[in-house]
Amino acid sequence: MITLTSDFGLKDPYVAEMKGVILTINPKAALIDITHEVEKFNVRMAAFMLASATPCFPQGTVHLAVVDPGVGTQRRAILIQTKKSFFVGPDNGILILAAQNQGIEHVYQLTNHRFMMPKISSTFHGRDIFAPVAAHLDKGVPASEFGPEIKDPINPEFNIIKRTSGSLIGEVMHIDGFGNIITNITETEMVQNHAETVNVDLHNISLKLAFGQTYAQAKPKEPIALIGSHGFFEIALNQGSAAEKFRVKLGDKVTVTVA
Amino acid sequence: MITLTSDFGLKDPYVAEMKGVILTINPKAALIDITHEVEKFNVRMAAFMLASATPCFPQGTVHLAVVDPGVGTQRRAILIQTKKSFFVGPDNGILILAAQNQGIEHVYQLTNHRFMMPKISSTFHGRDIFAPVAAHLDKGVPASEFGPEIKDPINPEFNIIKRTSGSLIGEVMHIDGFGNIITNITETEMVQNHAETVNVDLHNISLKLAFGQTYAQAKPKEPIALIGSHGFFEIALNQGSAAEKFRVKLGDKVTVTVA
Amino acid sequence: MITLTSDFGLKDPYVAEMKGVILTINPKAALIDITHEVEKFNVRMAAFMLASATPCFPQGTVHLAVVDPGVGTQRRAILIQTKKSFFVGPDNGILILAAQNQGIEHVYQLTNHRFMMPKISSTFHGRDIFAPVAAHLDKGVPASEFGPEIKDPINPEFNIIKRTSGSLIGEVMHIDGFGNIITNITETEMVQNHAETVNVDLHNISLKLAFGQTYAQAKPKEPIALIGSHGFFEIALNQGSAAEKFRVKLGDKVTVTVA
Repeated sequence: MITLTSDFGLKDPYVAEMKGVILTINPKAALIDITHEVEKFNVRMAAFMLASATPCFPQGTVHLAVVDPGVGTQRRAILIQTKKSFFVGPDNGILILAAQNQGIEHVYQLTNHRFMMPKISSTFHGRDIFAPVAAHLDKGVPASEFGPEIKDPINPEFNIIKRTSGSLIGEVMHIDGFGNIITNITETEMVQNHAETVNVDLHNISLKLAFGQTYAQAKPKEPIALIGSHGFFEIALNQGSAAEKFRVKLGDKVTVTVA
Repeated sequence: MITLTSDFGLKDPYVAEMKGVILTINPKAALIDITHEVEKFNVRMAAFMLASATPCFPQGTVHLAVVDPGVGTQRRAILIQTKKSFFVGPDNGILILAAQNQGIEHVYQLTNHRFMMPKISSTFHGRDIFAPVAAHLDKGVPASEFGPEIKDPINPEFNIIKRTSGSLIGEVMHIDGFGNIITNITETEMVQNHAETVNVDLHNISLKLAFGQTYAQAKPKEPIALIGSHGFFEIALNQGSAAEKFRVKLGDKVTVTVA
Repeated sequence: MITLTSDFGLKDPYVAEMKGVILTINPKAALIDITHEVEKFNVRMAAFMLASATPCFPQGTVHLAVVDPGVGTQRRAILIQTKKSFFVGPDNGILILAAQNQGIEHVYQLTNHRFMMPKISSTFHGRDIFAPVAAHLDKGVPASEFGPEIKDPINPEFNIIKRTSGSLIGEVMHIDGFGNIITNITETEMVQNHAETVNVDLHNISLKLAFGQTYAQAKPKEPIALIGSHGFFEIALNQGSAAEKFRVKLGDKVTVTVA
């Protein structure tokens, strides 16, 4: 099974081209779209989508993700092998958050041209490098065949949670369709700091919030902190948009302190 | 085979999460999207989409539909077994129109936790209850294993056609991309009242219309009544928008009288 | 394997209805969407999408494409057998560009009702004629069984490149999300005229452009001519929109002269 994540949209035929390449190499591959509606070049948003969806997929799944502003430059192409599955994409941080949640075992740079298209365009590595690599991986080629192991994949800023005495400092990773403010702080980190209330500092406001389970625990239009169904710490408004109320945008810093 | 209908959109990873859950349980399931672009919380629109598409699917298909404004409240989760297939979703009427067209045999409430995710979020039953139930059903688990039979599934207002002497009173179920006004009155009901002309009362206007076969039977910009390719009675304008011309909106009453 | 291309969008259930029909006839068909977001009735755009994507698909694939402004009129329904695959759709030019690139062997008119739905609506041949034909083809029914061979499929204006002494006259086939101006002139035609610079006449301006390999060969905001990853001659702006800068729209004539 291979999942696909990108910023290609569904209007242009790019996603279909990747699928055609995969199915030519590996006609039995089952292909599942995570999303192709990531904002153009928004690596952070793609990383969040991938990290949200991948826990639902079975052992051995190959996750292909292409949001690739550096295509055609010197940025590396990589393959990450985790305890549960495989991740294929550019070395710009898109894969790290999701892969880390599964436990990273090896990272390989994609250099073996045997598993790429014979002619590689400078604008569409999704089709010419990543899709054929995913197809061969899913067909059973061992991860170590694709290129040399590397130890320094790029770990983006948005993936790093800072810890100070009693506080976690993360950032706004995603604002969903309901206006919920979703951070990059995971359930695991919060569980270690479990409490009934938390102090949350946003860029311009300090909030003392109940740390609950469901939106409905807050009164209508009142804020609440909780772990969303995606496994990340979020600030929500019951029946309203927290992002609008608190004027929060992607990338804003969020400091969480157990009260 | 499992079909999926929802209001989740294709931007967020929710649909992929449902698919991941299904394929973890049942790796051989064939998954077909009906639509995920239902207006948020619009149960009527989802019911129409489902009723339009399901006649095309083979015997034994499992139809999963999640537009679920009541998620996390006391609303029941149900499974409907018809003469032809299975329907899984919330008990809010979303399934009834499509299921009725196939002949409802049994309705079960989903209560057996063996066929759900071990941890059930209060916000995403699509992933935690409906997807695993659909996967197990498709794998061959008998419908009666999922919970007790119930006799009182919710039958929404939009599913009820009133009959008076010579008239059918329904409502506007959907306005399609061309502006055609599609009602909840089925072909079967109209065939019993077949005629060459019909009187149609909309909220603010009475029309005497030819009851035809194709849009082109009307002059350009002139209205016509017909049974659309989805099997429902509709009012259309040849090469124009009937909804705009007659200022009709979703949920408006429509009275049809054989002339 | 069957690919699907249309202007039906993903909001309405039409695409799902075609898939249901296919899977009822041929439950093992693998279905891949090329795009369903073609502009309504824009046959040229669909032809471009299909021609871009089909080179990536394996031998024997069935390509189903339905943008069909003439549905219900006398326009023919056709099936094209090429050296590599099959194309099914209306006889309005949508299939020709993609099929020609593979080498057309036979064109058949679809007349055999044995391979269509028993009841054919006048508004939705995608579901009632093209989908079942594609399903039977993919199942192994020989192309010649579907109807008589024809020799005069419609070859649209947008598919014809005029050659004068040293010049190629084509037209703007597509403007992609980045504003690149993509013409209907193929790589093959340009290779025969390979040069380091080309003169390009647009409707209101004459340009002398480097004929390069990648966008980055031009200075930022400067134009360049190249063969895009889809195999067509295009005029691009490095990090900008060529279509906006040169005020070009779909269908505009483009004359290319080797300098």
